[in-house]
Amino acid sequence: MSKPVENYMEDLAVGQRFSAGPLDVTVDDITAYAKKYDPQDFHTDPARAKNTVFGELIASGWHTASLTMRLIIEASPPMKGGMIGRSVERMNWPRPVKPGDKLYFEGEILDLRASNSNPDRGIMRVKNTTFNQNREPVLEMETVVFVPRRPKA
Amino acid sequence: MSKPVENYMEDLAVGQRFSAGPLDVTVDDITAYAKKYDPQDFHTDPARAKNTVFGELIASGWHTASLTMRLIIEASPPMKGGMIGRSVERMNWPRPVKPGDKLYFEGEILDLRASNSNPDRGIMRVKNTTFNQNREPVLEMETVVFVPRRPKA
Repeated sequence: MSKPVENYMEDLAVGQRFSAGPLDVTVDDITAYAKKYDPQDFHTDPARAKNTVFGELIASGWHTASLTMRLIIEASPPMKGGMIGRSVERMNWPRPVKPGDKLYFEGEILDLRASNSNPDRGIMRVKNTTFNQNREPVLEMETVVFVPRRPKA
Repeated sequence: MSKPVENYMEDLAVGQRFSAGPLDVTVDDITAYAKKYDPQDFHTDPARAKNTVFGELIASGWHTASLTMRLIIEASPPMKGGMIGRSVERMNWPRPVKPGDKLYFEGEILDLRASNSNPDRGIMRVKNTTFNQNREPVLEMETVVFVPRRPKA
């Protein structure tokens, strides 16, 4: 195993990058997610999607975000206690995800600092980008994540 | 039917509010989402969750966001062409969603303006809050959504 099982803030560095993918996206994935969480014709039904502004089936932006979380888990150094999100600072969807797309994730640590209120905790800011197979971004977001601090010996 | 089938920007107003809920959250919902999109012990397994920082099963923040999208669809005036998100300006999770919670959604239109680049389109800014049954916020976000403009007669 190349990665240690449990990382702390002290094991990370600003500028560090991590990546994952590909993750295949199918019609069934798109429609199953959409029927539960975003039931609109352009997400739930390939035939009805033809009569929408998109003209074809596309994934819900929240499905793309969920798939991105999956890739973040695969990409990230495993943190002691897990990955606990504090906030998303901005998220946008430059283009839609479509059936047959393959998604790739890249993260870059923008900032790392100790928490003022909790000495056991650090705060990490990450630039996250999800790309399709043509290296076109489909989701961009900046996240702020709590990270554990290494206990003093 | 009290709501018209298709709304345009011209049918909306700054300050307008819309709401939906309750939406019941079960253990199975939480673990099914997490196994697909956010496989961490505090989201996937009630027994293993006991040994995590949370001490119990909690929903993935992205699951809470997905459930919020479901409530947004239920709450919103149906827009001609559907709800098409441009961006999330900030999203945070003040407290976790747990099995047995009932979620409620409230939206408020903060701003409405014509698009500079596309005369058929308006841009709506919305304050979105998802509450649990104790009226504690579990997700807060500001979204920017494209809305259609009424065609000139």
